[in-house]
Amino acid sequence: MRFSVALIPTLKEAPVEAHTVSHRLMLRAGLIRPLGSGIYTWLPVGLKILRKVEAIVRQEMDAAGAQEVLMPAVQPAELWRESGRWDFYGKELLRILDRHEREFCFGPTHEEVITDLARRELKSYRQLPVNFYQIQTKFRDEIRPRFGIMRGREFLMKDAYSFDMDATGLDVTYRAMHAAYTRIFQRCGLGFRPVEADTGSIGGSSSHEFHVLASSGEDVIASCTRCDYAANLEKATSAPLSASATPDDEPMRLVATPGKKSIPEVSAFLNLPESRLVKCLVVEAGGRPHLLLLRGDHELNLVKAANALGVDAVQVPEPGRIAELTGGLPVGYMGPVGTTLPILADRATESLVSFACGANQTDHHLTGVVWERDLPRPACADLRNVQPDDPCPRCAEGHLRLDRGIEVGHIFKLGEKYSKALNVTVLDPEGKERTPIMGCYGIGVSRIVAAAIEQNHDDNGIIWPVALAPFEVEILLANPNDALSVQTAESLYAGLTAMGIGVLLDDRDDRLGVKFKDADLIGCPLRVMAGGRALKEGKVEIQIRKGGDPLQVPVAEALATLRDLLGKLAGEESNGVGSWTQN
Amino acid sequence: MRFSVALIPTLKEAPVEAHTVSHRLMLRAGLIRPLGSGIYTWLPVGLKILRKVEAIVRQEMDAAGAQEVLMPAVQPAELWRESGRWDFYGKELLRILDRHEREFCFGPTHEEVITDLARRELKSYRQLPVNFYQIQTKFRDEIRPRFGIMRGREFLMKDAYSFDMDATGLDVTYRAMHAAYTRIFQRCGLGFRPVEADTGSIGGSSSHEFHVLASSGEDVIASCTRCDYAANLEKATSAPLSASATPDDEPMRLVATPGKKSIPEVSAFLNLPESRLVKCLVVEAGGRPHLLLLRGDHELNLVKAANALGVDAVQVPEPGRIAELTGGLPVGYMGPVGTTLPILADRATESLVSFACGANQTDHHLTGVVWERDLPRPACADLRNVQPDDPCPRCAEGHLRLDRGIEVGHIFKLGEKYSKALNVTVLDPEGKERTPIMGCYGIGVSRIVAAAIEQNHDDNGIIWPVALAPFEVEILLANPNDALSVQTAESLYAGLTAMGIGVLLDDRDDRLGVKFKDADLIGCPLRVMAGGRALKEGKVEIQIRKGGDPLQVPVAEALATLRDLLGKLAGEESNGVGSWTQN
Repeated sequence: MRFSVALIPTLKEAPVEAHTVSHRLMLRAGLIRPLGSGIYTWLPVGLKILRKVEAIVRQEMDAAGAQEVLMPAVQPAELWRESGRWDFYGKELLRILDRHEREFCFGPTHEEVITDLARRELKSYRQLPVNFYQIQTKFRDEIRPRFGIMRGREFLMKDAYSFDMDATGLDVTYRAMHAAYTRIFQRCGLGFRPVEADTGSIGGSSSHEFHVLASSGEDVIASCTRCDYAANLEKATSAPLSASATPDDEPMRLVATPGKKSIPEVSAFLNLPESRLVKCLVVEAGGRPHLLLLRGDHELNLVKAANALGVDAVQVPEPGRIAELTGGLPVGYMGPVGTTLPILADRATESLVSFACGANQTDHHLTGVVWERDLPRPACADLRNVQPDDPCPRCAEGHLRLDRGIEVGHIFKLGEKYSKALNVTVLDPEGKERTPIMGCYGIGVSRIVAAAIEQNHDDNGIIWPVALAPFEVEILLANPNDALSVQTAESLYAGLTAMGIGVLLDDRDDRLGVKFKDADLIGCPLRVMAGGRALKEGKVEIQIRKGGDPLQVPVAEALATLRDLLGKLAGEESNGVGSWTQN
Repeated sequence: MRFSVALIPTLKEAPVEAHTVSHRLMLRAGLIRPLGSGIYTWLPVGLKILRKVEAIVRQEMDAAGAQEVLMPAVQPAELWRESGRWDFYGKELLRILDRHEREFCFGPTHEEVITDLARRELKSYRQLPVNFYQIQTKFRDEIRPRFGIMRGREFLMKDAYSFDMDATGLDVTYRAMHAAYTRIFQRCGLGFRPVEADTGSIGGSSSHEFHVLASSGEDVIASCTRCDYAANLEKATSAPLSASATPDDEPMRLVATPGKKSIPEVSAFLNLPESRLVKCLVVEAGGRPHLLLLRGDHELNLVKAANALGVDAVQVPEPGRIAELTGGLPVGYMGPVGTTLPILADRATESLVSFACGANQTDHHLTGVVWERDLPRPACADLRNVQPDDPCPRCAEGHLRLDRGIEVGHIFKLGEKYSKALNVTVLDPEGKERTPIMGCYGIGVSRIVAAAIEQNHDDNGIIWPVALAPFEVEILLANPNDALSVQTAESLYAGLTAMGIGVLLDDRDDRLGVKFKDADLIGCPLRVMAGGRALKEGKVEIQIRKGGDPLQVPVAEALATLRDLLGKLAGEESNGVGSWTQN
């Protein structure tokens, strides 16, 4: 592509509304432009990157035996009513009335459509296992679209749906998808991590998320420093924490703590570490209040709380509502002693020999509270977010580290949720009707582009992995009025193109400084400059975008050198060099 | 692809709702399945065909210097208000309210979005000419979706939009697109015809449609048997018709024609050929009535009438409304003599020496009516559809023939309609603000699949051109329990795959008759059968789907023969052998 005739509207400054690195750089490098909130046009260079991701995903899904289909974006409401999601899905579902006032939606996902296809077309166990995928535009009406395409409303997704005869079959399909996803992100040259994820109350039995590691990621993922344990924050657990060191014989005592409500305030006032306090949180589940107990230094995990209470979700009530639910317990001074409300305690509170907590009396706390002596041991469950250095739940020897990640893939054992709801049956070898068991497998194709940038950039711009680069090489024509410079640049352009290497030729009639800046911004893996003193000596200057000193290479060797460098870079990237600790 | 594990749900019978050949065959061959009215899922084999069309379109657009972008499907209403189309477009525009009650539509076309992009990103004449295209899912809420994907609601389209500094520049771009379209349809192996099309009242100055020729086409296209004149029915004209042979001296006479209203009835009753009658039609344009005069054997062309009257569209009023508009003239007996209503006559009526027409009196006609003697010559314009054998308007020596076509492409000089409405300006070399001039260029990517089938099929199924075939070759494994048959089929499968030739291996454990029928239905260009007596003699049987005797070829030569046959077929098809008269 010739820069002079292409639409590559680079910007010196990013618009103020762009807060994340990838959003800023995608706008500045001229990859995308907003059309509305969370809705973007992909410009020529951006689209090239998107298509590269798409091609890698397609190849690996095909190689894994999945069959590509293309389902409609517009879906009839009846199917969503059958699955029960028309009412459940809420406002993220973009609902549409057609000219005949029939209800439709712009599909945010396609479980209903594929399951409808399956019930019509799958008749016999001979047709199973089968796995359908598509790469298709989706719409989710996010309440606050943000971070550019990272959390946009219209986006490109690969979604796949498998049908197996039984759980054993689904295991095989699921593992094949796990392997395919691993290959996809490896081939993309990204530092990533598959982590265990919560399956929620849907009843799916297993789920993994694939995260691109980036300090700007919205998600926190925990992993063991010794073994292969890794899970997202909703799911991650730790081995039991050790008991507090010194037993405490002091009696339970009522202490005035006037105006001290927060954990740091109480901790300082009582001169007790936060880990010796127990905080008492009220949540509402199914309309009923529950007191949840956590160590003062721990955070409640709402997903775990919902799972422990056996509900889809728990609500954290407003202060006014808390008084109503608890019969007037004082916010900031609530505690488990003497209450008749149902109590659920986090496991980490179990090993506290004695602790302080609210006294259910304004401006007062209890200290020296001891399980069984001062109150019965309540029901316990894992309710908290793990913390750095918590002991690993798998190997118990390692400790957990927390990293930030961007979720780019999700695989999920759906079970029979949709196949039951839409009544899919196939005949087994004995001629009996059986309900297939499903899995679903998503990849945020457009999100990968942003995630790759979050992981691979510096102050000057993007640093594309070879596999995703819009062009593997950018040629800078130093001086469009210098015949030797033009001839060299054009010859490299023709040569690289003939070798099947994507190349951007910056042939603009502009200052060289502008071209250098734009080249760094757009971030092609290799930059070759035709001009200046080097060229007078018969050489071109090659710069690896990732860093290192520029190479002076004789013009005659430039093509071979560029090819070899690309091969070396691509090899390193797809082998995941530094992937886990990257960025 | 292995038939045994692929979803290729062939059907013996097409569902009753499928009326056209392509709709029936696409359902029967398992290419698509309906999800709702005018909304279809593309199954694996169908999608392969769609992707082949897409790839050809993309390559030729790229080769023509157009830049690929991807615009959102969901478009804000504000842009459509700026262009004036939000209210104008009517119910075909699928309107959407998002969660914040803001108005959007599912884009049926993207003039507004691209023009908005242009006004933000195009600043200088140096950036022009530029041509953007995308291949993207569109939605038009057709009142009666029909013919399967041919006139569906959700469909895949290639749309392109060009910006030039002036009309001369647009001419160049337009010709380049004309040439690219020609290459696209040639490469698809389709019999097609570019024809002049009406530009309507939008003010575009030039327009061509590309039609795939098929007897089932919805459109009629006229072309000269001698020269290259070709136009669609809205646009086609003829050279002036010759005057009727014999002058007629009879006086004008009032004749009772009780109950004779239609042209055939009056013609028979008066014993005059229909071409000697003048029929008088009332239309409403801008709220005013007009009497249109046509020869009895001619048909009114509403587009021409609107153009002649300088309005967007003319309405044909209901009988009750006619009485109201005309002050009570009797339907079936209206005529131009003695009326004060504005009259516009088709040119073909000019050369009538005398004629019969309604007398504006129930149950009466006038005969022997002569221009200038009995009534003033009215204003004239071309108002009629051309008919077969009309003289060619270009060479005057040839005659017109009428064929049916399916519109698969449309190129259009838009002029300044959108660039003015959305206020796009760029600086010219003198630093003056100028409004770019636009063209737009559409191809119905999914419709091409259906059009190709309408043009290429027989009673047994589809006959794919090589370029669009989901698989170039289908291998029939005659007997999955016969080792030699299996070994031969697998070896051909591996060999063809290695040669980059798409191949479907029918390895199902099913009767050979079923496989033959499905092979004909799916319509791969070449079929090779591994089994039976031929294989015992070391041969496979190759059948060209288009016809001809099967070839018996030694197994060792099969790959080379298949490759050569494909090359030969593809060459013939892309050279348009028989394209104009095909089907």
